[in-house]
Amino acid sequence: MRIPLSFAVTPLAIVCSMSASAEKIDYDHQEKWTPPPAIAQSPVDIRSDMAIEGDPEESQEIALRNTEAALKVVDNGHAVEVETNGPDARIRGRHFELAQFHFHAMSEHTFNGQSFPMEGHFVFKAKNGRLAVIGVMYREGEPNRLAGEVLDALEGAHGGEIEREDIAVMLPANRSYHHYLGSLTTPPLTENVEWYVMDTPVTLSKAQIASFNARYSHNNRKIQPLNGRPLVRYVQQ
Amino acid sequence: MRIPLSFAVTPLAIVCSMSASAEKIDYDHQEKWTPPPAIAQSPVDIRSDMAIEGDPEESQEIALRNTEAALKVVDNGHAVEVETNGPDARIRGRHFELAQFHFHAMSEHTFNGQSFPMEGHFVFKAKNGRLAVIGVMYREGEPNRLAGEVLDALEGAHGGEIEREDIAVMLPANRSYHHYLGSLTTPPLTENVEWYVMDTPVTLSKAQIASFNARYSHNNRKIQPLNGRPLVRYVQQ
Ligand SMILES: [Zn+2]
Ligand SMILES: [Zn+2]
Repeated sequence: MRIPLSFAVTPLAIVCSMSASAEKIDYDHQEKWTPPPAIAQSPVDIRSDMAIEGDPEESQEIALRNTEAALKVVDNGHAVEVETNGPDARIRGRHFELAQFHFHAMSEHTFNGQSFPMEGHFVFKAKNGRLAVIGVMYREGEPNRLAGEVLDALEGAHGGEIEREDIAVMLPANRSYHHYLGSLTTPPLTENVEWYVMDTPVTLSKAQIASFNARYSHNNRKIQPLNGRPLVRYVQQ
Repeated sequence: MRIPLSFAVTPLAIVCSMSASAEKIDYDHQEKWTPPPAIAQSPVDIRSDMAIEGDPEESQEIALRNTEAALKVVDNGHAVEVETNGPDARIRGRHFELAQFHFHAMSEHTFNGQSFPMEGHFVFKAKNGRLAVIGVMYREGEPNRLAGEVLDALEGAHGGEIEREDIAVMLPANRSYHHYLGSLTTPPLTENVEWYVMDTPVTLSKAQIASFNARYSHNNRKIQPLNGRPLVRYVQQ
């Protein structure tokens, strides 16, 4: 199949595509076809003036389910990560299971150029292999119960295990988001990720942020160009 | 974010990913991070013994709507293409609009190694830029009314326009499919495509297939490796 103007087409690719179209595609030398460039990468700067409304003909909602679960906290060498098995979500009509969540400092996504001290990534996977990641901004304020338990578990208490906790306390109650199609933010940077970045930050205490920073204070990838990708806004009423 | 074992990870990428994990990701030299390789390409051979069931917790259905529309037939230099505006679909809970459909000969996808004389690609686009393509296999048999009108329009009758026709006559009535995450099959080969390849072929007459072949008889990309991607089967009852 062939699309003249897919979103994931840089100006360069448009030129290539147009010239190929004019020149005819050479089916006898397919080995010379160039592989797609990586132009749908994450993170991005979320510019509210660029956002468009979602499709009114489909459910935009994110609904988390079974949010109370056993958790296992690990330091994986580049981030603090919490593994779990049980929480799932309905995201825009489809079903995803939570695999893990982890933290970056500073935030990877920015809002109109503004960074936050930390960002959480809640990584969901669907049966077809699609990943959906819910991004949450953390700012300084009231302490967060689960963040405290994660930090305690990192100190080796209970061997990194948290017997049972509600992961929802680390997400905002209001599920308004900005959505776009992007990638993993660490190698291999695979472009198989639907991003849902929450608009409402969640607070961590100054001491909690300092404790996370003592482990990783610079595990955030630089902002990547949007390259014409739609940025879709959803406002939960 | 980082996933140890995303589907889109070749054995090589797993090695790279594991060594990166062991070595620590170098956030001070991000420009050296390698872009993702193109390993989720289309078409693929649909091996029924590899297929898994879809997620019972979500709607697997494809429902076409507003299928009667004005059509414009063009020869775009590499395929016969029909442009339209109006038909839309609900695909696994989300809303997509049909942009165009076009034809390849031989088929691009194969079923257990078997090619078909032609394959149609019905290209749908969502508001977030996601593409969903419904692939239809055509085999020799009874003539197809719309295929006849498309061939007539190509001869210049009515300037390529078809005033009003039901595009559904070129799709099978039963919407059972095999689904996987893939790419455009022509440059720029962008990996932003959800594929839904219909299990039930539709017939074209021998003369209709010959007429399409007189224009393009070799505009099919070679089979690409699945590279561990899930292949999801949906059987419409
Ligand atoms: Zn095609
Ligand atoms: Zn992350």
